[in-house]
Amino acid sequence: MLKPVNPKINIDRLWKSLMDLAKIGATDKGGVRRLALTALDGQGRDLVVSWFKEAGLTVRVDRVGNIFARRPGKADILPVATGSHIDTQPSGGKFDGNYGVLAGLEVVRTLNDLDIVTDAPIEVCVWTNEEGSRFTPVLMGSGVWAGVFSAEHVLGQKDIDGKVVKDELKAIGYLGSELLGPGGKKAGYKAYFESHIEQGPVLEDSNLPIGVVTGALGQRWFDVVVNGLEAHAGPTPMNLRQDALLAASMLVQDVNRIALSESPHGRGTVGSMRVSPNSRNVIPGQVIFSVDFRHPNNDGLDRMHATLKQACDRVKAQCSVEISLTIVSEFAASVFDKDCVAAVRRAADQHGLASMEIVSGAAHDAVYVSRVCPAGMIFIPCKDGISHNEIEDALPEHIEAGCNVLLGAMLKMANLE
Amino acid sequence: MLKPVNPKINIDRLWKSLMDLAKIGATDKGGVRRLALTALDGQGRDLVVSWFKEAGLTVRVDRVGNIFARRPGKADILPVATGSHIDTQPSGGKFDGNYGVLAGLEVVRTLNDLDIVTDAPIEVCVWTNEEGSRFTPVLMGSGVWAGVFSAEHVLGQKDIDGKVVKDELKAIGYLGSELLGPGGKKAGYKAYFESHIEQGPVLEDSNLPIGVVTGALGQRWFDVVVNGLEAHAGPTPMNLRQDALLAASMLVQDVNRIALSESPHGRGTVGSMRVSPNSRNVIPGQVIFSVDFRHPNNDGLDRMHATLKQACDRVKAQCSVEISLTIVSEFAASVFDKDCVAAVRRAADQHGLASMEIVSGAAHDAVYVSRVCPAGMIFIPCKDGISHNEIEDALPEHIEAGCNVLLGAMLKMANLE
Repeated sequence: MLKPVNPKINIDRLWKSLMDLAKIGATDKGGVRRLALTALDGQGRDLVVSWFKEAGLTVRVDRVGNIFARRPGKADILPVATGSHIDTQPSGGKFDGNYGVLAGLEVVRTLNDLDIVTDAPIEVCVWTNEEGSRFTPVLMGSGVWAGVFSAEHVLGQKDIDGKVVKDELKAIGYLGSELLGPGGKKAGYKAYFESHIEQGPVLEDSNLPIGVVTGALGQRWFDVVVNGLEAHAGPTPMNLRQDALLAASMLVQDVNRIALSESPHGRGTVGSMRVSPNSRNVIPGQVIFSVDFRHPNNDGLDRMHATLKQACDRVKAQCSVEISLTIVSEFAASVFDKDCVAAVRRAADQHGLASMEIVSGAAHDAVYVSRVCPAGMIFIPCKDGISHNEIEDALPEHIEAGCNVLLGAMLKMANLE
Repeated sequence: MLKPVNPKINIDRLWKSLMDLAKIGATDKGGVRRLALTALDGQGRDLVVSWFKEAGLTVRVDRVGNIFARRPGKADILPVATGSHIDTQPSGGKFDGNYGVLAGLEVVRTLNDLDIVTDAPIEVCVWTNEEGSRFTPVLMGSGVWAGVFSAEHVLGQKDIDGKVVKDELKAIGYLGSELLGPGGKKAGYKAYFESHIEQGPVLEDSNLPIGVVTGALGQRWFDVVVNGLEAHAGPTPMNLRQDALLAASMLVQDVNRIALSESPHGRGTVGSMRVSPNSRNVIPGQVIFSVDFRHPNNDGLDRMHATLKQACDRVKAQCSVEISLTIVSEFAASVFDKDCVAAVRRAADQHGLASMEIVSGAAHDAVYVSRVCPAGMIFIPCKDGISHNEIEDALPEHIEAGCNVLLGAMLKMANLE
C-alpha cells in the first residue's frame, strides 16, 4: 500500500469518541461534570484506556495516575507524544481537555489504518487533574511529570470533604507504582504537542481555523487593599473625603491602560472586588480587589508591575488613602520550542488551513511539559470563545482541522528523514 | 431682677443631663444603644419627661408617641419650639438627637432661672423614631406631625421580629390619644429650631463653633446595573472584552466629577457595589452599584441626574455593555425660613461666636417640620465629623455655644417687640 503524502484523520470516528466520552458525567445543558478522581473520572479513564488497548497501545499508569499509551516506533529514540486531560470543571464542557486526548487517539487510529510505522514511538498522555477544581494544585499530573511538584506532595492533597488524592486514585484503580517522568531533566519526549480549544475569542474573531501557539502568557496575581475613611455620604463634602472606592475605580482604569499599553498580548483584569461597609449612603472606608496581569515574557510582567506601583502611589496622593499591593501568585511565561511551533505551522499549510500565531492566555499541561522537553500546541476556535461552561462548543470542521494538523506535526517530528 | 440683655445657659447642668441620659443604653465603647420604642427608649423618655415636669412644663403625648412639653407665654400666639429625638442607632453616640432635646430643656431651665416669660409659649419636642433603625420610615414622628405620613400607617409598621409600633408604644406608656400636629396646614409653630451635631467634618475643618443651617440637601438614590460578558481573564484580549467592572469604574469617576461640578454643596457617592461572578481570573459579567446624589435644590438634582444618564450612554458605547439606571428613592431639597436662619446668625453674632452658613447633608426632624412652619437649625462641630458611631464625640464648649445660640434665636422669635 502506497503511503499518502499528507494523511488525514477520520472526523466521524473522532467526533463519535468525543460524544461517547461526553456521556460520562453529562449534564442537562449539554456539558460535562467529571471532576478529577471521582467515580465518573474512573469510568472516563476506563473507556479511554479500552480504546487505547483496542488501538494496540501499551498502557502504563504512574504514581499520580497519569496514563501513558505507547505505539512502538522503528528507532530507539525518544517518543513523540501528545495528550491533555479528561477531568472537567464542575460545570464544564465536552471539549476542554477531552479533545486533546481523543485527537491523540485518532492520530494513532489513523496511523494504524494507513499502516504507518514512525521512527519514534508515538505516546498519548492523559494527565491527572488538570483543572484543579477538586484538588489543588492545578496541572497536578503534568506538574509532577515535569518535576514541578513532588509525587508525595500531591498524593497527600485533600478535597473539601477531606478525601485524599492517593486514596481516591486507588479507589478508581489508577494508583500506579512508578514515576515515569524525566525527573526534571531535559528528556522524556523528542517532542510533545497538545491540541486544545482556544477558550478565547481570537480565532473566531479572526475567522481562522488554526492557532499556532508560540507560548503561554506569564501570570502575576495581586491583592490590592485600599484604606480610606468611612463617612456619611450626606454631610461629607467631596473635598474632605477619603473614598476608597473612588481610589479603587481609578486603579481599575490603570490596570486596563497598563494592559492596553502591552498590546496585543498583555492582559490586565480586576475580577473580584469587596467594598466595606458596602452601604448605599456611606462613603466606602475599605476596598479590596484582585489584579491579574498576563504577558508573553517576564520583562513585560515586570514593566506592568512597576507601572501599577506608580499608579498606586499617584492614586494614594490624589485620594488621601493608603494602598497596599501584594503578589499572591506567579507563573512564569513560556516560549514553546521553535521546531515544534514550525512543525505545527507547516502542517497547517500542508492541509491548506489558514492559521495565525497565538499565545495561550491560560495554562495547559503543555506548559509544564515544555519546561523539560520540546513542546508546542494547536488551538482551534470554540463558539463565542466560551469555555469552563456547559455551553462550550466547537465545530466538527475545526475539530477535524486541529487533529489533521496534530497528525502532520507529529509525523514531521517522529520521522528521522 | 434686671433681665440680662444676652442671657447664657448653664453648660455644667446641660452636660450633666447629657451624661445622665447617655447612661440609659450605654455601650462599652462610650456610645449608646437605645432603639426606638424599646424598654430603654421608654426609660429615656421617662427621665426626660421627669426633667420637663421638674422644670414646670406641661407634657402631652400624641398618637405616635411624640412628646410636647410646653412653657406658657404671655400672648395668645403660636409657640416657638425646639427639639429633636432620643432614639439612637444600634451603635449610636451620646449626642445625635439627645443634644437637641436637652438643649431645649436647658433653654427652659435658663428662662426659669432668669424668670423670663416670653410672649410666645415655648415648647420642647421629642420626636418618635427619627433614626429608622428598628422601624421604618425614618423621621417617623416628625413626619406624622407634618402630615407626610398618616398615623395609621406608621402605627401598623413592624420591626424585624414582627413587633408593631402601636403595641410597642403602648408597652412603654407613650401611646397618646390625640394628633397634635398642624394637620398639613401652615401652622403649628411660630418658629421651630433644632440644634444638632453636624455629623460631618466641615465646621471642624473650618475651625468654627457654629453652623447656620440654611437648608437640607435633596437626595436622589439610584441603582445602576451594568451587564457585560463574563469571560476568562487569560485567553480574552483587551480589545474583545465587555468588562462590566471597567465600565462601572468609569461611572464611579463620573459620579465623583458630577458632584464636584456642583461644588460646594453637591454630593455624589457610590457606597455599595456587587461584582459577579467576583472571581480573580474571570472578567466580571455583571456589576450592580448604588449612586447617592445630594444637592441643595431640585434643579441641581435634575442636572446631576441628566449628566449621569449621558455618562451611562457614553460608557455603554465605550465598553460594549448594557447599563440600566433606576431611581430607588427621592427626598426633596429643603430651604429653611429666612427669618429663622437670620435669628440663628444674629444670636451667634451676639454671643461673639464665629459662624458659617452650612447646608445639612442628612435629613433631620427639622426638615419635615419646615414643610409646615418656619424652621431653622444650628450645627455644632463633632469630633472628626463622626456620627452614628459609639465614638461620636463633641466638646462642652461647642455644646454650650450651640445652646446659647438656640436660646438667643428662640428669644428673638418668641418676643413680639
